[in-house]
Amino acid sequence: MYGVILAGGSGTRFWPLSREEYPKQLLKIFGNQTLIQATFSRVSDLIPPEHLSIITNAQQAEQIRLQLSSLTTKPLFILEPAARNTAAAVGLAAMMLRKKDQDGTMVVFSADHYIRDNAALLRSLHLAEKVAEKGYLVTLGAKPTRPETAYGYTQEGKPLRDHPPAAVVQRFIEKPDRERAEQYCASGDTLWNTGIFAWRVSTILEEIKSFLPELAEGLRQIEADLGTAKEEETLQRIYPQLPSISIDYGVLEKSDRMAVIPTDMGWDDVGSWNALDHVLPRNDDGNIITGNVVNVGSEQCVIYGGKRLVAVVGLQDVVVADTEDATLVCAKEKAQDVREVVKVLKDRDNGDEHRVHRTVIRAWGSYTVLEEGKGYKIKRIVVNPGAKLSLQMHRKRSEHWVVVSGTARVTCGESVFTIQTNQSSFVPMGVKHRLENPTEEPLQLIEVQCGTYLGEDDITRYEDIYGRIKGSSKNREA
Amino acid sequence: MYGVILAGGSGTRFWPLSREEYPKQLLKIFGNQTLIQATFSRVSDLIPPEHLSIITNAQQAEQIRLQLSSLTTKPLFILEPAARNTAAAVGLAAMMLRKKDQDGTMVVFSADHYIRDNAALLRSLHLAEKVAEKGYLVTLGAKPTRPETAYGYTQEGKPLRDHPPAAVVQRFIEKPDRERAEQYCASGDTLWNTGIFAWRVSTILEEIKSFLPELAEGLRQIEADLGTAKEEETLQRIYPQLPSISIDYGVLEKSDRMAVIPTDMGWDDVGSWNALDHVLPRNDDGNIITGNVVNVGSEQCVIYGGKRLVAVVGLQDVVVADTEDATLVCAKEKAQDVREVVKVLKDRDNGDEHRVHRTVIRAWGSYTVLEEGKGYKIKRIVVNPGAKLSLQMHRKRSEHWVVVSGTARVTCGESVFTIQTNQSSFVPMGVKHRLENPTEEPLQLIEVQCGTYLGEDDITRYEDIYGRIKGSSKNREA
Repeated sequence: MYGVILAGGSGTRFWPLSREEYPKQLLKIFGNQTLIQATFSRVSDLIPPEHLSIITNAQQAEQIRLQLSSLTTKPLFILEPAARNTAAAVGLAAMMLRKKDQDGTMVVFSADHYIRDNAALLRSLHLAEKVAEKGYLVTLGAKPTRPETAYGYTQEGKPLRDHPPAAVVQRFIEKPDRERAEQYCASGDTLWNTGIFAWRVSTILEEIKSFLPELAEGLRQIEADLGTAKEEETLQRIYPQLPSISIDYGVLEKSDRMAVIPTDMGWDDVGSWNALDHVLPRNDDGNIITGNVVNVGSEQCVIYGGKRLVAVVGLQDVVVADTEDATLVCAKEKAQDVREVVKVLKDRDNGDEHRVHRTVIRAWGSYTVLEEGKGYKIKRIVVNPGAKLSLQMHRKRSEHWVVVSGTARVTCGESVFTIQTNQSSFVPMGVKHRLENPTEEPLQLIEVQCGTYLGEDDITRYEDIYGRIKGSSKNREA
Repeated sequence: MYGVILAGGSGTRFWPLSREEYPKQLLKIFGNQTLIQATFSRVSDLIPPEHLSIITNAQQAEQIRLQLSSLTTKPLFILEPAARNTAAAVGLAAMMLRKKDQDGTMVVFSADHYIRDNAALLRSLHLAEKVAEKGYLVTLGAKPTRPETAYGYTQEGKPLRDHPPAAVVQRFIEKPDRERAEQYCASGDTLWNTGIFAWRVSTILEEIKSFLPELAEGLRQIEADLGTAKEEETLQRIYPQLPSISIDYGVLEKSDRMAVIPTDMGWDDVGSWNALDHVLPRNDDGNIITGNVVNVGSEQCVIYGGKRLVAVVGLQDVVVADTEDATLVCAKEKAQDVREVVKVLKDRDNGDEHRVHRTVIRAWGSYTVLEEGKGYKIKRIVVNPGAKLSLQMHRKRSEHWVVVSGTARVTCGESVFTIQTNQSSFVPMGVKHRLENPTEEPLQLIEVQCGTYLGEDDITRYEDIYGRIKGSSKNREA
C-alpha cells in the first residue's frame, strides 16, 4: 500500500495564521503537532515513510521537509511546477507509482484534515485496500454529526456483501443548502465526503483516461521522459498546461466504479476559522482562547492570540486571529469570506501579509523582520546549533550584526572571526560574508540593514550547504 | 477672564489608543489637532494664554508642554501631586487665581471634549461672564440631540430676565435610564451638563467653604505657604489628603446659586469608543475607518487602525482599535467596559500596555521599543534637530547604536565623535555617554541594549538640558 499526501494549500482560509507560503498544514492548530506532522504519524502504522509521497510545490516542500526532519526515512517529494488542482496531482502521483509498482494500491490523503479516532481510520483503510483490489475507486465517508453546508456528501447504494460496511456509491451531492443538509444528516445513508481515497494505481489511471483524456495525454508525455535527462524540463513544460479540475468532479462523480466506506472516525475538514468550534474544547463561556488575551464578557468566540496583547469586550460569535503583522476580526458565520481579504491583499501594491509571516523559517534557523523603514530594515536572526547560512554578498546593502545570545563565527571578506553576546560586527556592501553558529546553543543576533534597496532578492550565493545555489531567484533569503 | 483646563485623564476609556501616561486629551481623535491643542485654540480668542492654567500631573504636563510648544506665550501649569478629583483641582486653581486677581472670573474646561460650533461656545461664555459677575455659579447646558444615558442633565428653572437665555438651575439629574433620557430629550428644558463652568473666584471659594469645609481648610493651609520656600513641600503633603470628590457632586448640586446657559454648540463628551459615531463622519456602510484596514462586508463599525494591517469581515456594531502592541475588539454597546480591560492589565505582573505606548515621546524626540527579549531590548530612537539626551550612565546594560538616518554626535567616556548613516558605536556598561543631533535634520538610530536588567530606571543622569536631574526616579527614560 502506498500513500499520497496532497499538500498544496493556498493559505487563504486560516489567514492571517496561514499564509501563501505557510498554509494550514504547516500550523499547529489542534495540538502540539502541525497538521502535516499529524497526518504523517496517523498513517505511519499502516504505510512506512518510504511508501509515502507528498505532492506540493517547491516552497512548501522546504517547510514540510523541515517539519519532518526528525524522521529517519524520508518520504518522497513530488514537486508540482504549478498548482493544477487534485486530478492532475493524483494523476502525476499515480503515474509515478506505476513505474514502481504497477499493481500497488494508493491511498490519497489531505495534509490538513482533523481526525479524532485514528484506529477507526486505519480499520477503514484496511477494508478500503481490499475493496480497491476488486477494482473499485473507494472513498471514505464520515457519518455527519451536524447539518454542514460547507461539505459535499456521498449517498450509499447497494452494499458490497463481501466487504461490509462498504457499499457502492449511489450518488455524490455538492454542498447542499441548510434544509437538505439536515435531511442528509438524518437519513443514515448519506455521508460526508472526506476526500480520503483508495484505489489501485491502474484503476485510477484507467478512469482518468476515460473521463479526462487530455490529462491522460499530458501524463503520458511526462511519463515518457521520467528518469531521463529531460524529466524536469518536460514536467515544467507540460504540467502547467494540464486541465485544472478536481479529482472528485473530473473523475469520481462520473465513474461507475465508486465505492464508499462509512467511517466513524471524528473527521472534520476544519475549512475555516469558525470550524474550530467543532474540534477544539471550549471554556465555560463557549470561547476557544489561546495566547495573550484579556476577555471581558465575550461568548462563543474564537480568539487566537500570540505574544501581542488582544483584549475582547462583549463580543458574540466573533473570530479574532492575531499575528505580529496582521489582525483578523471576523463574524463567525462569515468565516468563509476570509479568502476575500486575501484577494484584496494580493491586489495591493504594497505589503506581504498575504504571502509570508514576519518570522520566516529556514533550514538554518529563522529570521523575523522587526521593522522596515526608509533606508533600513531590522531583523532578529536565529541560527540553529551547527548551522550556517550561505556564503553570500549583497550589492545594495550593508549589515550590522549585534549578537544578543550565543556565539557567531563570521566570515567577512578574507577574515574569519568569532563574536560573542554583546559584541558586534559590520559587513560592508559588496563584501562576501557568511554567518555560522559553531556551538551547541542557539545563536541569536540583531541585524540592522542599511541601504537603498533591501529586498530579499539582493543576494548572490557562492556556497550553500542547503543546495540553494541553483535557481537562487526562488530563494528569498540567505 | 481666566481659564482653567482640567487635564487629568486616566487614559482608560480610549485604551489602547490612550494610555495611563498618554490619555485622550493628547490624542488626535477628531482632526489634525490633539484634543488639548483644540481646547487651547478654541478659547484663545477669548482668553489669552497667560490667563490660562492647566491643572494636571507632572507626567502629562511634560507631554502637554510638548504639544503646546509652538505657543509663544505659555500657559501656567498647576501640578497635582496626586489625583483628587475635580473639587480639589478647581479649588486649588481658584485659590491660586485669588492671589492674582481677587475679582476675576474663572472658566473651567475639560481638556478632552468635542465642540463643533466654537462661535456658539464663545457667545455663551460672554454671557456666562456677566451672569458669574452677579454671583452665580454658571454651567453651560447643551441641548440634547439624543437620549444619552451616559451624561448628567440639568433642568432649567426660572429665567434670569436680564441675561437671556440664562436661567437658574431647577435641579441636577444623574445619568438617567433610557426612558427618562428620552423624556428629558423631548422636554425642551432639560440640558446635558457639559462640565464647562464659569464663576467668580470668590464665589466658588465661598461655596467650597460652605459645602466642603475640609477641602477649604486644606486649601487654606496650602495658600499660607504659596510663594514661600515651603510651597512645594506643603502641596505634596496636604494635597493628597484632600477629599476626593467631584465639583458637581460636592458643590454644584448643593448650591442655590446655580445658573445654566443653554448652548447649541454641538458639544459631546465622547466618553468612549462608541461615542465616535456622534462626531465623526461615516462612510456608506456606516463605518468609521482609519489606517491600514481591509473591510469585507462590515457595517456600523469603528475601525481604528494604524500601520499594522487589520482585516474585518462581516462585523456589525463592533469597535476595533489597533496599536503596535495591543488590539482591542469590543462590541459597540459594551464600550464602557473597556475600563475593565485596563483594570485587568493593571493587576497583571507583566506588561505595560495599560501605561505606555511602544512609542514614548520626549522633549528631545522619541523612542520606540521594537522588541524585548531575554538579555536584550531593541529601540528605534529619533533625536530632533539640535536636541540632546542627558549625559548619563547605565549600570546594567551596554548599548549598540547604528545610525540609519542623519548624523549623531556621541560622547562616550572621554571621547566625543560623530557617526553618520550606516555607522555604529558602542557604549559599554558603566560608561558615561550622551547622544546629540548636531544637525538640522532628524537623527534616527537603532539601539540594541544588552544586559541582565533593561528597565528604564537604570539611568544615572549627570547633565540634562530638560531639567530632569532632580527626582530622576520619576523620569523613566533618557
